Amino acid sequence: MTVELICVGTEILLGNIVNTNAAFLSEKCAMLGLSMYYQSVVGDNPGRLRELLQTAKGRSDVVILSGGLGPTQDDLTKETAAEVMGKPLVEDGQARKEIAEFMAKRGRAITENNWKQALVPEGCRVLYNPNGTAPGIIMEEGDTRMILLPGPPDELVPMFEEQVYPYLHSLQPEVICSRMVKLCGIGESSAETEVLDLIESQQNPTVAPYAKIGEVHLRITAKAQSEDAAYALIAPMERELRKRFGDLVYTDDPQVTLEMAIASLLEEQRLTVTTAESCTGGLLAGRLVNVPGISGYFKEGYITYSNEAKEKILGVSHDTLEAYGAVSQQTAEEMAKGGAKAAGADICVAVTGIAGPDGGTEEKPVGLVYISCYCKGKLYTQKNQYTGSRSKIREYSVASALTLLRQSILKETGCKMA
Amino acid sequence: MTVELICVGTEILLGNIVNTNAAFLSEKCAMLGLSMYYQSVVGDNPGRLRELLQTAKGRSDVVILSGGLGPTQDDLTKETAAEVMGKPLVEDGQARKEIAEFMAKRGRAITENNWKQALVPEGCRVLYNPNGTAPGIIMEEGDTRMILLPGPPDELVPMFEEQVYPYLHSLQPEVICSRMVKLCGIGESSAETEVLDLIESQQNPTVAPYAKIGEVHLRITAKAQSEDAAYALIAPMERELRKRFGDLVYTDDPQVTLEMAIASLLEEQRLTVTTAESCTGGLLAGRLVNVPGISGYFKEGYITYSNEAKEKILGVSHDTLEAYGAVSQQTAEEMAKGGAKAAGADICVAVTGIAGPDGGTEEKPVGLVYISCYCKGKLYTQKNQYTGSRSKIREYSVASALTLLRQSILKETGCKMA
Repeated sequence: MTVELICVGTEILLGNIVNTNAAFLSEKCAMLGLSMYYQSVVGDNPGRLRELLQTAKGRSDVVILSGGLGPTQDDLTKETAAEVMGKPLVEDGQARKEIAEFMAKRGRAITENNWKQALVPEGCRVLYNPNGTAPGIIMEEGDTRMILLPGPPDELVPMFEEQVYPYLHSLQPEVICSRMVKLCGIGESSAETEVLDLIESQQNPTVAPYAKIGEVHLRITAKAQSEDAAYALIAPMERELRKRFGDLVYTDDPQVTLEMAIASLLEEQRLTVTTAESCTGGLLAGRLVNVPGISGYFKEGYITYSNEAKEKILGVSHDTLEAYGAVSQQTAEEMAKGGAKAAGADICVAVTGIAGPDGGTEEKPVGLVYISCYCKGKLYTQKNQYTGSRSKIREYSVASALTLLRQSILKETGCKMA
Repeated sequence: MTVELICVGTEILLGNIVNTNAAFLSEKCAMLGLSMYYQSVVGDNPGRLRELLQTAKGRSDVVILSGGLGPTQDDLTKETAAEVMGKPLVEDGQARKEIAEFMAKRGRAITENNWKQALVPEGCRVLYNPNGTAPGIIMEEGDTRMILLPGPPDELVPMFEEQVYPYLHSLQPEVICSRMVKLCGIGESSAETEVLDLIESQQNPTVAPYAKIGEVHLRITAKAQSEDAAYALIAPMERELRKRFGDLVYTDDPQVTLEMAIASLLEEQRLTVTTAESCTGGLLAGRLVNVPGISGYFKEGYITYSNEAKEKILGVSHDTLEAYGAVSQQTAEEMAKGGAKAAGADICVAVTGIAGPDGGTEEKPVGLVYISCYCKGKLYTQKNQYTGSRSKIREYSVASALTLLRQSILKETGCKMA
């Protein structure tokens, strides 16, 4: 079964945004065992879109469109796709109701053009959208299936996962299952070198490494007649990977993030954590607070951007700051120790560094970041040298801080990950 | 003059990589005043590529291809493009020499298939590649120009900047310039309604709205014979937008973010700010710390996730928490007031809410977020009801908090934005 992707949006053609939807949808289709031969981008132009849709309809079994479902005049994806599929637009009562509720909840006025979003092709399946006002659509006509999704990734992604993935899965008798073995604390090329023999000899299941910021994810994928059969193929490969990577593996669940794995560890070990951040300025705490229910283990955190704040809030000594500077092992360690004390927490992770673009010196260049974790009386400290933009340096610092936090807990408690 | 983009690579169709080349090339072409109507991605398949190239040749003046110039058997972009343009391949002596030097410098052995990369279409212009072994190619035939670029961004980007941009610029006497008028504190459909008459009557310049989280960006674009002439067309439209949106406009510079605009205001008014966050857990401070040099105005921030932390760090009264709860106007206001006092700052923005997915009640549902800004003795408080995922609720809360912070400063200082 073939699938083709058409992303609609002048902002993509103008290069204003990177088309991450295409990468997301392509990866999911590949996992579903659908063959994708074409991706296209067109602007909000009904003539060109119509032509492309007719071509796509003739050569692919499934056509997925993203974008152009907004309330404004130049959003014409739905109108054009319905026309190509020969379906008139009719109002969907439920969609109208949901749009009204969505706007009311936000206290935003409904303008006339919002109601355009409640129109759907006759006889289609409506994909309701709790994250925005544009419903998605699945329509079938003869052998062609057309799927329309809203452009914003935070609407498209959950709609695809929850409503489109199961639909596409039902079209495809063979199942493709995968597990994601997630590693932290190892680089991509080292991880790949460790499994090169597995990658080279692979058939079913396959193993593929994906580099993420501060993490490497190894996807094991198997094809079989049933889910059980597929997971039976995956199991020995997963055991092999766990044997090779040991504690570097923090989960095999695609939904589990590093911060979630850490939250589980904290819960299991009944430990509390706090954060003392300088250059990351709250992003580390922000990652921990991604986890619902973290409040049992994370009560408070500190952003100590100035030297005075490091002294006042964390009790870093003035002499240390004078002698070694704010970006030093000594300061990082006093921040970690002082943060744990101030919060009355078992653990504190501290980050201090030079995120740039200015402020670097020959001795302490931009990208130099010290991370220290005070864990039940012991200090674990790391010196890192990153490259890249300010935001990249900060993101890598957060990823390293979470990794060090996890490693410290594992060492201090002697516990093994599941 | 029209341009079309074809990216070749099975790894893009599989979703293994995000197609950042497309965004880069699109933006450059837009800046050059070239009209791009189509982008496509195909795999390393000569049949499908040939078909697509023939279509592209028939409808676009310039066709830019990226990827598929490597030394391996499945790299067939050059062979296929040369065939479609009716050019035989011949060896280029300079290319051969450069490949040999490139490999020697890296101490890598040259294999027979490397020499394939020295073959070029007869009569073409060769774009030598100091960053890799694949030379780029510009070929012309009749009215069509085809430009072939290597896929790796660190080879494609410098080759485009140094060799292709000047070539394209010489083809196109007209320039396209744009300004981005960025608004905060208004929704996309309301913003569009305000400018519908301008959008409907537009020709040159044009206005297009883009929705961002908590912001709306209006891009004004003009085409003219020179940059000066283009900006002269943009100026009256920008004045009109500023008249209509007033203080909602925070910048007209595409590079300036809301947090950067706020940092400029703080600097101008010599004010310091701090943050007191509950559900956003550091993300608000993280946005402020995006701005290099914010340390003069932002010294420290607090993440007070538990009630105890709100009492201990911010001095929120136990009675208030008991009587009204942590998510209430009263708590938000005490957090803001207490945060400013604790940090000795002129301003404090506080956020407290229920980010979900659990913890909501009928009276206080998930998505209820109070934001309060204490600014030079006065309190500005906002009650918001968001919907969507935990992360979406948190992102919207941060955007609203920044907007409220900006509005409070404008009100308290009576200053007008530039």
